[in-house]
Order: sequence, then C-alpha cells, then structure tokens
Amino acid sequence: MKGSQREPSRPAQPGTFPKCEPERSDPQLARLCVDFPVSVVLPAGGTGERTGLHTPKQFCLFMGRPLISYTIQAFERVSWIQNIVVVVAKENIDLMMDIVQRFQHTKVRAVPGGSTRHRSIYNGVLALGEEEEKPTPNVVIIHDAVRPFVEEEFLLRIAVTAKEHGKCTKWRTRAECTLQAAGAIRPLVSTVIATTSEGYLAHSLDRAKHRASEMPQGFTYDIICQAYQMCSESDFEFGTECLHLALQYCGTNAKLIEGPPTLWKVTYKRDLAAAESIIKETLSKSACIITGGLTLAASLAASLQKVVGSLDMELDIIPDLKGDNARYLSKKYNFIQISVEPFSPCEVEAIVVALESKNQALLHPVAVIWVYLSTAESSISRRGAETPTLMDLALAAKLHNIFLYGIQIHHSKDSERWERSVLRLAEITSALIQERSPALVGQLLQA
Amino acid sequence: MKGSQREPSRPAQPGTFPKCEPERSDPQLARLCVDFPVSVVLPAGGTGERTGLHTPKQFCLFMGRPLISYTIQAFERVSWIQNIVVVVAKENIDLMMDIVQRFQHTKVRAVPGGSTRHRSIYNGVLALGEEEEKPTPNVVIIHDAVRPFVEEEFLLRIAVTAKEHGKCTKWRTRAECTLQAAGAIRPLVSTVIATTSEGYLAHSLDRAKHRASEMPQGFTYDIICQAYQMCSESDFEFGTECLHLALQYCGTNAKLIEGPPTLWKVTYKRDLAAAESIIKETLSKSACIITGGLTLAASLAASLQKVVGSLDMELDIIPDLKGDNARYLSKKYNFIQISVEPFSPCEVEAIVVALESKNQALLHPVAVIWVYLSTAESSISRRGAETPTLMDLALAAKLHNIFLYGIQIHHSKDSERWERSVLRLAEITSALIQERSPALVGQLLQA
Repeated sequence: MKGSQREPSRPAQPGTFPKCEPERSDPQLARLCVDFPVSVVLPAGGTGERTGLHTPKQFCLFMGRPLISYTIQAFERVSWIQNIVVVVAKENIDLMMDIVQRFQHTKVRAVPGGSTRHRSIYNGVLALGEEEEKPTPNVVIIHDAVRPFVEEEFLLRIAVTAKEHGKCTKWRTRAECTLQAAGAIRPLVSTVIATTSEGYLAHSLDRAKHRASEMPQGFTYDIICQAYQMCSESDFEFGTECLHLALQYCGTNAKLIEGPPTLWKVTYKRDLAAAESIIKETLSKSACIITGGLTLAASLAASLQKVVGSLDMELDIIPDLKGDNARYLSKKYNFIQISVEPFSPCEVEAIVVALESKNQALLHPVAVIWVYLSTAESSISRRGAETPTLMDLALAAKLHNIFLYGIQIHHSKDSERWERSVLRLAEITSALIQERSPALVGQLLQA
Repeated sequence: MKGSQREPSRPAQPGTFPKCEPERSDPQLARLCVDFPVSVVLPAGGTGERTGLHTPKQFCLFMGRPLISYTIQAFERVSWIQNIVVVVAKENIDLMMDIVQRFQHTKVRAVPGGSTRHRSIYNGVLALGEEEEKPTPNVVIIHDAVRPFVEEEFLLRIAVTAKEHGKCTKWRTRAECTLQAAGAIRPLVSTVIATTSEGYLAHSLDRAKHRASEMPQGFTYDIICQAYQMCSESDFEFGTECLHLALQYCGTNAKLIEGPPTLWKVTYKRDLAAAESIIKETLSKSACIITGGLTLAASLAASLQKVVGSLDMELDIIPDLKGDNARYLSKKYNFIQISVEPFSPCEVEAIVVALESKNQALLHPVAVIWVYLSTAESSISRRGAETPTLMDLALAAKLHNIFLYGIQIHHSKDSERWERSVLRLAEITSALIQERSPALVGQLLQA
C-alpha cells in the first residue's frame, strides 16, 4: 500500500475531483435537499467482452487506478449517500476488497453477484436490508460501475424524484406525487430500427419519441424490493431494465430525466481512451506555481501564467507552501516550483515530501515540475553533474504516484529570445501536466 | 502548403493507414470484387453542437489534420471507388477546398449542402449524375464525415450487397437478388425506451429485435435518386434515415450488415479523444530501427526489439535506408536512429531530409528518435555544447510534420545497470512514439 509506512490520512478533500461542491445551476435544485437515507447498488459483474480486453473494464487501470474506484469515489464524496454495495463476481471479491483497501474507500461493501444482471442487482438490494449499522434506505440508487463521471447534482435529482413523499414539494407536480422511480435518459445518437428475423429493415423508429435509457436510476427501497419479489424467472434471466420491472410489477411509471453526456457507459476499447482523457483533462485544469518569493522567479511565474492561461490552465502563484498556503497541497494536482541558482532540487524535494505526507496522490497522480531558471553560462556544466539527483528523486517519488519532471530555462537579456523560451516553457509544462507520462519522469528538459 | 518548395509527390502508399490491404478475413469476401462504378457521398454539413466546441467536429484537427481528411483518405485508398462528393455548408466550401489541396486529395469534389441532412445528401447524389469525366455510378455509398475508421472490407460488403445484379452470385441468396440497398447496423449499447409526452416511461423495447442504424449505407444510383424524387417535403425536412426512404418509396427492403465498433460516429467531445487515441495507436504499431551497421548499435537494437516488443510495438532492424531499405521511408511512421560517438546528429538529419523528400509526413506526423549511445565519460561535457543543434534541427523538422526527439544512453559494463538503461530507453521511446507530443521535440532525454 502506498505510503503505508507513514500512516497517511486520506486527503482532506478527496471530493475535489471532478467537483468539490455540486454546481446547482438550476435554481430549483438549489432548494433541494436529501434528508432521508440513500444507498447505492453498483453492479460490477460484467466481463467486458466488448472492449476486447482480458480485464473486465471496471477493473481496467486509469493512471494506476481501476475504473470502478473512480465510480465509487463519485458516490463517496456525496455526503448524503450513506453506503454503497458493489456487486462483483465471486472470483473478483478479493480483488475488489484489495481495491477498497488500497484506495481507502470507506462506504463500500462488496457482495457476490448472481448469474445475470438482475440477479446481481437484487443481491445488492437484499444486502442493503441486512446492514446492521445503517438504517434501511428510503431510496436506492442503481448505477453502473463503468459510468465513473456521475455528478452530485444529477444524483440529487434522481434521489429526490424517486422519493415518494419528500419534503421538497415545490419541485413536484401532481403527477410526480405518485412517483417511486426515476431514471436517466439520453437522446439517441443513431436512429433505431426494427429488424426482421432475416436481417432486413422492418421499420425505423421515430427519434423524437424514443430515448436511450441510461444509469443512474432511483427507486424507493420498497418498490425495488417488491419488483424483484414479484418478477418472473424469465425477467431475472433475460431482462436488463429495472425501470421496466417497476412499471410491470408495481405500476410505477418512472420519471425520466435527461442526464449529461458524461453519463455514458464505458463499453468499447475507444471508451477507455475517452475516459482517460476526461480524467486527465480534469486533473490539468489548474496548477500551483511556487516562486520562493524571488523577484526573477515571480516575474517568470507571471509570464507563465499569461501564456498557460491561454492554453486553458489556471495558475495560482504563491511564494511558498507554508502557513495558509499549505492548503494547496490537498487542493491541487499540479505544482510548479521555480528555482533560481544554485542548481539544486532541494526545494522541489520538499514539495514531494509534503505531498507524500498529505497522501495527496492516493487517488490521482500528482505532477510536480521543477523549473530551474539559470542565469549564468556556467549552469550548463553544473547541470550534467547534478542530473542524476533529479532522476533519483523522481524514481522515488514515482513509487508514491508523484510524477516529477524538470525543465531548465536560461535567462536571456535578449527579450525576443526570452519570450521564445517562456513560450516553450509553457508548452512543455502544459504537455507534461496533460500527458502525465510515467516514462518521462526525472528528465531535465530545455526550454 | 507543407513542403511545397520541393514539389513533393504524394507518399507511395498513403493507404497504409490504417491498413494497406483490406484483410479479407471472410473467405467468401475474398472472392468478391467490385467491377462496377462506385461513388461516395459524404454529408459534412453538421455544426457539431454536441461536442460543445466552436469548430464543427468534421473540421476538428487531429494531429494537425481535420477529421474529414481522415474519412476522405479512408475512401481514397480504395481502388474501386471512383470519386467522392463532399457536401458542406456554403460558408465552408473554401475551407474544404483548402483541405483537399493541402492534403492532396485527388478523388474529391465539394458541393454546397441544403438546409437539412436529406437535402444535402440529395445535392450530393445529383452532383454525381453531373460528373463529366466519370460514368454515373451503379452504386452510391453514403457515409458520415465523422466516421473516419471505415475499412475497405466493410465498404466492399456494402457495395456488393447494394448492387442488384452483381457477378458474385455465390454470396447471394434468393432474397438478396432483389436488393438495392444495404446499411450498417450495430447492437444497441443502452436499452431504448418509448417515452410519454410528459416525460414518463411508456415501455421499453426488446433489444433483440432492434439495432442502431449506422453508416455507411449503399444504394443503387437509380434507387437513391428515385427515393429522393418521390419523397415528401416533410421527409426532406425531418427525416434522417435514407434506408427508410428507400423502403417507403421504392419498396427496397435494405439488407442490414453488422459493422465493427470502429464505425461509430464522432459525436461528443469525448469521441474526439477516442478518435485521436485510435489514430495514435495505429501509428505506433511499428517502427524501423537503423543501426548504421555498427556492432554495438546492432546489439542495442536487438535488446530494444525484445523489450519494446513486449510493449506491443514491432521493430524492424536495418543497417541503413539505402537501396532496397529505402522502401521503409514510405512504409513507416516511426524511425529510431542509433548513433555511437562522436556526438553528432548528422545521421538523423539525413533521415529527416529523406522523409521530407518522400513527403511521408503529409498525412500523419512521423516520429524520429535519435538514440545517442555514448561510451566514454567525456560524452557529458560534449553534450551540452551540441544540444542546440538537435533543437534547431527538430524545430525545422516540425514545420514539415516530422517530430524529432533525442535520447542519450550511456553504455555500461555493469550488466544490471545496462539492462536498466535499456529498459528505460524502451519506455521513453515507446512513450514518445505513442504521445507524439509537439512540445517535446528537440529534447535530449536520458535513458
């Protein structure tokens, strides 16, 4: 386990990814609240055959962490969600427990799945009723392990809509007062057609009247239990749609809510690349730049801020990480330390140590970029001799999920040349942060 | 225009991406041939609002080249496709012509689109009938500009299936003899549901009997013309499905053919990342390693081959690019030059010049990695002084879409240390080739 020697605590705000607080853009939503117990069932028994990979996709690694851990985190950071039951194939229970322990998930229990999706979900629902320390939930949210980007705002809408007698009456119309289920939908990307048994076109469906049914879906606990108690063997065997069971067996006409495109299900190999790019983009949105309080460094930081800003990255400039500024250590995933001569990576080493002790890289790799601003010609010869130190430091940091890179920039009095160097520094910095390549740690690049 | 000073010719085998020859995995397909004129209509009028970007997605750049150019290339490399009509919004005609000229597309004509998708496709079909130098096609393939990964094998199936009286009778059953249309389908990823007008679940559809209708679709020229001549204003205004028109107005019951997952439509921002990763992965599958015939270099190449092979990249080792080996210059997108002392990038400079003269980087960036194998301690001091040369060379090469990177590896007699260096060299090489980062060109990294 990472950093276990130091008994690190979990980062103070693990929920900063992708968002610390839900953006309640809808003024109606701002008034909503969840004051009833909500639990989550996360079926994760899929074999991932559609990705064409050996590993089921929920266990595929994204920057060293399995996809399912991202999904779990999306629920764990929501304060009003009390617990999460992950349903996995029996042979993966140990793997799942390892993941829970390694990434310090606290609200999760893993239970073995059944032979089909519905049987697995039902196992999860039953497990919620057996929890000793938690009350039976009013609302159960069912989601997919392979939809990692669900946000609090949307979960809130699903939970509140699914609850029959919630307090938030402003949000309800007469029709909704009888609701006990809610499900995410998306517009269809392709036209859906009905096919004959011989593989010919029978007819095409009206896109305006049809939607793709996605996850999450929410049900009152009683409804989802009742639906599963009443449904047939054939439903258990061949069905996929929980909303359908609620309608068929409980007469519950689910309210459908359009979700954001990020709700999509990681299904094919290309989706793995798409998911990784979303994670990397989110991690690359902002960085913290530390100047040591030196004038030359501060001036470089300001120039960098201007250029990098146009590359869609926000930079906070601070002199050091002491006192109040220490909060950045558990807020950012990117740090840029500017050092002026003498050539010595000891300042950046201090940042790495501080990040390790905060356990900041538990969930996401942290990028640390050491910018060495040289002012004299002599810097070149000095550099060669010191380079191994940076590499040694980087290889040690990598074991803690911290990626350390170096960039040397030579101060020039020729303003055109200097501007060119700063531009290149910005491009390299931005590329290193966005790509987070483990293979390039410890290199001293030239701006 | 790239390299226009030298009047470069198009690369000898521009169709090597993603595949040089269609893989006719199906033995029935191996016997198929297209001996009738086939043309393509590529509607590209979309505004790309679903990606959330300003640029319509067909014009989004992937490593410097617009998506639509990749799609055009997918058709241009198919010998039996005679021409391609791209239908774009009036305001984008000039942009489209620039793309055609810059990437030297030869089979393309751009025509202005109509106000809806069907009107645009019809404009394209009409334009095919007006071509002076080409015969009116027997079969028209309609595709989307934002589905760049269509392969020859699948196009062949669509074209042959759509043609009424083809020669390949072995492939036909009685029912298919009346066919005049064929369309690609994919299994549904999500359950499709019918919704009430108030946003509630009406019922869910049986996934076994429904499919997503995708592109390409093929029609005999007569059928697609007739369908458009007969269809209503309402069809032109609100319809999206060509197969539907053929069924409704010509009684043509299209044959549906399941396509590969790579046929998917680039729709959302995440799809841009997925597409880029497919392109990069395809480009990174193999590299050519040039040893200069030196024993030390050849031995390093052999070690590298072993390690990189396990990273899913194939390496061909050759002493130089002379004579018969010059064919690699128009076959590969990755070159690794191993040089032993003295420190001088002149060998790698020769590769860059040769690639430029072959115009090999017209369609895809070419990665050139200069591995400098140093054997004496003195190499360190020598390095500093020479580094700018590599950067200058790299910046010049970048203008020609050739990305040049350097890696220094120091030969060690300590076998453990040497193995570690070789491993790191392999990791860095592989990362540079896979990421193709323009920001990192000209750097001399340390293995």
